Amino acid sequence: MRTSILAVGTELLFGQTVNTNASFLSENLNHMGFDVMYHFVVGDNPARLKEKLADAFADTDLVILTGGLGPTQDDLTKEMVAEYMGREMYLDTEVEEYLKGFFARRGGDMPENNMKQAYLPVGCTPFYNASGTAPGFALSVDGKTAICLPGPPREMKWLFDNGVKQYLAQFMEKKMFYRVIRTIGIGESDLEMLLMPLIDGQTDPTIATYAKEGECTLRVASQRDTDEEAEAAVNEMTERITELAGEYIYSYDDEDLNEVVVRILREKGLHITSAESCTGGLFASAITDVAGASNVLSSAYVTYSNESKTAEIGVLAETIENFGVVSPETAEAMARGALERSGADIAVSVTGYAGPEADPGHEAGEAYIGYATADKCGHYAIHTSRADRKWNRRYITLRMLRAVYLLIR
Amino acid sequence: MRTSILAVGTELLFGQTVNTNASFLSENLNHMGFDVMYHFVVGDNPARLKEKLADAFADTDLVILTGGLGPTQDDLTKEMVAEYMGREMYLDTEVEEYLKGFFARRGGDMPENNMKQAYLPVGCTPFYNASGTAPGFALSVDGKTAICLPGPPREMKWLFDNGVKQYLAQFMEKKMFYRVIRTIGIGESDLEMLLMPLIDGQTDPTIATYAKEGECTLRVASQRDTDEEAEAAVNEMTERITELAGEYIYSYDDEDLNEVVVRILREKGLHITSAESCTGGLFASAITDVAGASNVLSSAYVTYSNESKTAEIGVLAETIENFGVVSPETAEAMARGALERSGADIAVSVTGYAGPEADPGHEAGEAYIGYATADKCGHYAIHTSRADRKWNRRYITLRMLRAVYLLIR
Repeated sequence: MRTSILAVGTELLFGQTVNTNASFLSENLNHMGFDVMYHFVVGDNPARLKEKLADAFADTDLVILTGGLGPTQDDLTKEMVAEYMGREMYLDTEVEEYLKGFFARRGGDMPENNMKQAYLPVGCTPFYNASGTAPGFALSVDGKTAICLPGPPREMKWLFDNGVKQYLAQFMEKKMFYRVIRTIGIGESDLEMLLMPLIDGQTDPTIATYAKEGECTLRVASQRDTDEEAEAAVNEMTERITELAGEYIYSYDDEDLNEVVVRILREKGLHITSAESCTGGLFASAITDVAGASNVLSSAYVTYSNESKTAEIGVLAETIENFGVVSPETAEAMARGALERSGADIAVSVTGYAGPEADPGHEAGEAYIGYATADKCGHYAIHTSRADRKWNRRYITLRMLRAVYLLIR
Repeated sequence: MRTSILAVGTELLFGQTVNTNASFLSENLNHMGFDVMYHFVVGDNPARLKEKLADAFADTDLVILTGGLGPTQDDLTKEMVAEYMGREMYLDTEVEEYLKGFFARRGGDMPENNMKQAYLPVGCTPFYNASGTAPGFALSVDGKTAICLPGPPREMKWLFDNGVKQYLAQFMEKKMFYRVIRTIGIGESDLEMLLMPLIDGQTDPTIATYAKEGECTLRVASQRDTDEEAEAAVNEMTERITELAGEYIYSYDDEDLNEVVVRILREKGLHITSAESCTGGLFASAITDVAGASNVLSSAYVTYSNESKTAEIGVLAETIENFGVVSPETAEAMARGALERSGADIAVSVTGYAGPEADPGHEAGEAYIGYATADKCGHYAIHTSRADRKWNRRYITLRMLRAVYLLIR
């Protein structure tokens, strides 16, 4: 079913609020097999709201509106939708009772203007809101359906899960299944080239590639008559993708790389440590961002100065002097030193120039990642050629995660 | 000037990506005095893209498009804008050279399909992109202006700051000056109450408050006939704000708290170290995120397990046993231990439950921040009462920065 999402709220046009409602609704509607074709945002302006509602209904049969259901004068979504669809308003006594109870429980009378929230368009399907004051509703007229939901994300989500989803089931024709596959170590263009035999001319399952910072995500989706058929089609396509690009895939389940790394470390009962220079704690914080990290990390080191590399993790001053502090040799010595000092099973290290500046003869984004286990030691060289400090730090951290992933998978 | 923002990308309609570009652009355009009236989102579909471009231009004179400038087949924004505005494409040799250099620096040839990115509409103003491969551009035809920017937020922001802003100056009638004042330690409602005598009935300068995670930001803006008048009006209002709320202000220049902390440390020639448990490296990474951090941080410790608190920074096992690992006493012992081991002038530490779980008798979001200098030692207690691990970790890190700020300001 062709669907639009229309958000109402001047705060969105001021940039004070990010339209996370649109992405939540889009994701859920897509999962249910609805075809989300447009997002619109308008301010709290009745004429423009009606105009964009008309635009949305010109192309799509279902329009989900968020925002503008509050008790104040500039909350006009409900009234404009009723007017556009030619319906009067009625006083919904169930909402009225609920509102009075809501304010009584907070120890006060209902402010007069909240009474506005108890009116709904005649013939609508109300969605009673146990998470706030504004009820939502669906209104179908002549094959066009508008669904109005409150703007606060918590309330919108609650109503979506407790009313909207059930209401929408009547419109679902096909069943949808999809899988998000995460890759690292290959750019979007190269990945697309690699998968071209599968992508070219493919209508179902669909394969879409998305570039993320330093990695690339694949979404494989199928719409069939039954859940089983859709899932089987996605599974078969996943196998074919794996044949072509398996070496770059680290998750078939939309996990982040730090989550995958912590999961595998836990499964294998391994402890990790890190010695970070240019990333300055980002790697350790990526690991400890995952709940349960205490099972895989005891201690980690930020050794930012040359002296601290020697004092904390025993890198020889000569190593730094002979090869330079940003060198494969120093990176490996850091990894070996951290492994020994911490007693962990795996150590990963990094030394480099995050930027925006670098020492003479070097450029920002040059870094060496070292790794060490009881019987292995090695390094990776990185040259991002970027002067963007924050980007370099995040990218290098991702590459450290990848180095660990390749070691333990 | 009436403005629309049109985002292009099926990933937005799938809900995989949140349209943060629209809020970034809206905020910045509003600051510059542009009237953002609509946001639109369409998928990678040429017909719908052109249709919504026409809709946007029907009501507004400036349309900023994001996304769809990549090298792949479904990236069509540039071509559709040129077609809609009746312009051919030309090969921009400056972009071509840059792209070849970009890939050469990464040690490879340019993939063939990236060549697509070197074509631009005839008569446009190019915005060369030093942060990625896709150039942006502005194209004005018959009083209507389209500006195309790449979809990845980092590149979009870089081009906005390095090209678009300067280009848009020609459309600004009044001169705008604004200042972003950052505060910490006071909630948004309380800050608004405190400043009510200034906010009430004020038309120019305007004062807006925004709550951010754990802190609150003030934006003071004036639009006058000359730059000087606008700046003088903002300066006068800033003085009046300082009289009422000066104790909470840490920056008059929209600096982040980590930037302010590093700047003051550098000015005073002080070195800092940290010993982190529940934040697991986030504090150290906040410090090292600032260019020049090597002047203020040599080493830092992630001591996640009890044993590592003893082995790395000398916390007595009895301290942990008697008072608990999440306790003021352990926090202070961690700070003193890190100070001693590192030889820094200031140490900050943290021990707590990031969540979602906590030990029996505790709750997620309970944490103790310790600090130590040669002659001072103390702690702060935190109870966020939230089970949200990521939120707790970020909030606790901000509170560590605040603890250091109060010590050194």
